[in-house]
Amino acid sequence: MEVAEVAAEMAATTLGNPEGRVLRRITKIKKILEADVGSWAGRRVLVGGWVKTGREQGKGSFAFLEVNDGSCLANLQVICEASTYTLAELVPTGTSVLVEGELKPPPEGVKQRIELKVDKVLEVGPVGEKYPLPKTRLTLENLRDFMHLRARTNTISAVARIRDELAHATHAFFRQNGFRYIHTPIITTSDCEGAGEMFQATVLFSQAEKLAKEIKENPLPTESDVEAAKLVVKEKGEIVAQLKSTKASKPEITAAVSELNKAKETASRLEERSKLTPGIPVKPDGGFSFDSDFFKKPAFLTVSGQLQVETYACAVGSVYTFGPTFRAENSHTSRHLAEFWMVEPEMAFATLEDDMDYAEEYVKFMCQWLLDNSREDMEFMVKNYDKTAIERLKLVASSPFARVSYTEAVEILMGVTDKKFENKVEWGIDLASEHERYLTEVIFKKPVIVYNYPKGIKAFYMRLNDDQKTVAAMDVLVPKVGELVGGSQREERLDILKQRILDADLPLDIYEWYLDLRRYGTVKHSGFGLGFERMILFATGLDNIRDVIPFPRYPGRADL
Amino acid sequence: MEVAEVAAEMAATTLGNPEGRVLRRITKIKKILEADVGSWAGRRVLVGGWVKTGREQGKGSFAFLEVNDGSCLANLQVICEASTYTLAELVPTGTSVLVEGELKPPPEGVKQRIELKVDKVLEVGPVGEKYPLPKTRLTLENLRDFMHLRARTNTISAVARIRDELAHATHAFFRQNGFRYIHTPIITTSDCEGAGEMFQATVLFSQAEKLAKEIKENPLPTESDVEAAKLVVKEKGEIVAQLKSTKASKPEITAAVSELNKAKETASRLEERSKLTPGIPVKPDGGFSFDSDFFKKPAFLTVSGQLQVETYACAVGSVYTFGPTFRAENSHTSRHLAEFWMVEPEMAFATLEDDMDYAEEYVKFMCQWLLDNSREDMEFMVKNYDKTAIERLKLVASSPFARVSYTEAVEILMGVTDKKFENKVEWGIDLASEHERYLTEVIFKKPVIVYNYPKGIKAFYMRLNDDQKTVAAMDVLVPKVGELVGGSQREERLDILKQRILDADLPLDIYEWYLDLRRYGTVKHSGFGLGFERMILFATGLDNIRDVIPFPRYPGRADL
Repeated sequence: MEVAEVAAEMAATTLGNPEGRVLRRITKIKKILEADVGSWAGRRVLVGGWVKTGREQGKGSFAFLEVNDGSCLANLQVICEASTYTLAELVPTGTSVLVEGELKPPPEGVKQRIELKVDKVLEVGPVGEKYPLPKTRLTLENLRDFMHLRARTNTISAVARIRDELAHATHAFFRQNGFRYIHTPIITTSDCEGAGEMFQATVLFSQAEKLAKEIKENPLPTESDVEAAKLVVKEKGEIVAQLKSTKASKPEITAAVSELNKAKETASRLEERSKLTPGIPVKPDGGFSFDSDFFKKPAFLTVSGQLQVETYACAVGSVYTFGPTFRAENSHTSRHLAEFWMVEPEMAFATLEDDMDYAEEYVKFMCQWLLDNSREDMEFMVKNYDKTAIERLKLVASSPFARVSYTEAVEILMGVTDKKFENKVEWGIDLASEHERYLTEVIFKKPVIVYNYPKGIKAFYMRLNDDQKTVAAMDVLVPKVGELVGGSQREERLDILKQRILDADLPLDIYEWYLDLRRYGTVKHSGFGLGFERMILFATGLDNIRDVIPFPRYPGRADL
Repeated sequence: MEVAEVAAEMAATTLGNPEGRVLRRITKIKKILEADVGSWAGRRVLVGGWVKTGREQGKGSFAFLEVNDGSCLANLQVICEASTYTLAELVPTGTSVLVEGELKPPPEGVKQRIELKVDKVLEVGPVGEKYPLPKTRLTLENLRDFMHLRARTNTISAVARIRDELAHATHAFFRQNGFRYIHTPIITTSDCEGAGEMFQATVLFSQAEKLAKEIKENPLPTESDVEAAKLVVKEKGEIVAQLKSTKASKPEITAAVSELNKAKETASRLEERSKLTPGIPVKPDGGFSFDSDFFKKPAFLTVSGQLQVETYACAVGSVYTFGPTFRAENSHTSRHLAEFWMVEPEMAFATLEDDMDYAEEYVKFMCQWLLDNSREDMEFMVKNYDKTAIERLKLVASSPFARVSYTEAVEILMGVTDKKFENKVEWGIDLASEHERYLTEVIFKKPVIVYNYPKGIKAFYMRLNDDQKTVAAMDVLVPKVGELVGGSQREERLDILKQRILDADLPLDIYEWYLDLRRYGTVKHSGFGLGFERMILFATGLDNIRDVIPFPRYPGRADL
């Protein structure tokens, strides 16, 4: 039986109490608004959602409610008569309603496509106090103070739908290209680049707090408590010795020995407890000791799943990760988050050329997906945030990306005369955002892939080119955002990789497992990382990365 | 243009150097083995993979290699003649090969379906030293010491493919039911249940280590350093006063004032620096201070995305999360991990009945998906680990789950005479694993949903039933694993929810945002959580949860 058939059969099976099933009987507003008016008019539907705006009309004889259920941006116009429900309770913005009624075509000449004439109000969730979000549009920045309510705004719910679509596009793209989805770990004891600032995952604070609380209730024994206990041991020992020397009866001796043992136990327990030190454990050299931490050593939140996923690429072939990554950098820009999602494909037997091809196809695929699946939300972005957002998607989906070597890119930028860059351009520099954006926005006017970067500015695992000066790295630069993708062919040659680790002043021992991948059946392989939030910024034209992730984390803020 | 067309066009476009593209030209072994022998024999293909076993034959005139590329469990038989390559370099287990040749039907009566006669060996990744994994099967437990190589074994690669299929099934199921995928945060300042032990995410250790290092290089000023600097300020002040009183020239006074200011600056800098305390900052009351931590307060790794995702359910309708969650529990069982993946749908307007329906459908959908998409890997599990694994999938996919109230379940268990439970059964207890498994494996012989649990054993956010004794919670119990899903209708009534928080001895203030969802347009809503690794255990019949996640984290271990 096919999955679809099973699902259909499931839906048809009556399980439990059908009266109790509400969700199944609800019709999504998206479905109503997308439907053909002719065939839907006259149907009875159950609709659940929140009142965006409501007003009483006809001297309080009926109310118009604009109801949104989050399935799409558009609201359904709902009409309710005073005889059906107390209208004043329905009209406040934010009120939730579960209503039943009949779909009607609107009067001629009115722009609404179809409206719902309600005859049963099943549930109402009132807005008891004043709704915290004003009707006038808050700035996106102010909205961040209402993290738990902002999904109810047009912008943030549109972003949520676009984000969902891009996540599905990601899985669809990799699945249809034969990649397997691998869950790399969040908590890690290895550091991908030896560079990024990392969050540490620990239980030492809660351990110390527990101990402090316990000590408060039951204070630690003092030195004299321990001495006293030891004295008891000594006394009991003397008694035993005396009994033995006087050849006392066996039961007498046994009883005394048992007393002695009890005393010993008490003394050693006291002594051990007296050594407990509240606070974070330290080593003799003064550094922190992580021996009693959960993993018995320092553990961190991952900055990238790349190194780990390479172990799967070198076994299962083409794989990808899609999960959260972390940077504990004190950066307050509109482009950085402490917690963000990355997509990281890794492909055995792939060269840098393959890597660039897949990165280009993947970005194009996502753009086309949004054009096909998110028209309404994208039009909202065009109207409110970025006139060129849809144009940009079309451009990227349809034109081949430019490809230039780093050396060519530097030459191009050095020849620029109509603009003065803040950062001087010369071979060897890490391209700044202003350079990247100039290349993609002004020179090429489309996405551009820059490849073969100087080895000095790139990570140790990137494959050394034959010129010994550059590595097989590539970045995809796109208008509006700059760097969207960074990738490379990985160094598969054991000796060169070892040397690159040493040159980067990194310890060899923590990379022994990574070197093993080169010791045993090494293969050429490549991969890249795409910052998922950057892709959403690129697609929507929104300015701040804090608005394209449901719960942004940045210095000083981790609301909810 | 459709996404598929775009993808096709992309694949056709010649971008960059076609010679450099290797991956695109490779044919996956799965494709070769699934193909019709008749139509594929004679074709030339490029294949890349790892030698599972290799042997020289015909007195060293040719070699048979069993090559696996991870696309499926089965190997491709590859034949290479001595004239083509040094055979001794190809045959060691673990060697990687990129080879080209012609597909041939095997000689009659031989079980291989098709084999590859190689005439070009393009790349070889040798096994320089002895391959660390022995040919004889290691136990799964021993294999955990080779976290970076274990994906190359049949079992772990089969698990990886099954896990990937279940992830895709998850997204497919929720998408086709109109759910949106929401990324809830990993780092959180709110605790879902006020119960689970949590990991703390911090930068305080690295901050303290940095400071300690800096102090070592540049010791803190002593009290007398500070006093000396203050003395200089006093002297310079006296000079200024004297100059002013003697009516010295303006430039003279200005110079002296400037000296004074410099001295003041030095003194205050020294004084401030002298106050730096190495180590973890503490508050006056002795507790740790998190004012200088990244989020300026304690932040933890999430134990569940439920509370946060409710903010989206109460705005966008039906949503789900699928991401990593954490428990810092010192538990060494085969059923617990410190880091594991959870799927958590949350549905506005849904009742407990809807919740049970969706949980049942989702589990059935995944079972059917594996039957349709993972036959080879599932047959491997049946052969090697659990004879009944496929039968179990079929049973679950095809039969309606039993549904009993907690009260009924307890009555059934109290009536059991053929088994003595370790934990006594009576109304009010939390069902133990032995009870759960008895219900699903012995009594019902299929999955069973137990609902309406005593409020005392369930979380504060579960909806209080009219009996005031039970809450609208439900658990899905399945053979082999016990509890697979836990869910509930959420308490949508403000006053009752407040009381439940207080009854649970939790502070109201940290839940104000959660209460706001009930203050402004509250709706009935429900959701559940499925432990993704438990689902894989259930599907594969494997015994230990550490073997169904790529990189298991548990007390003392976070390899890689």
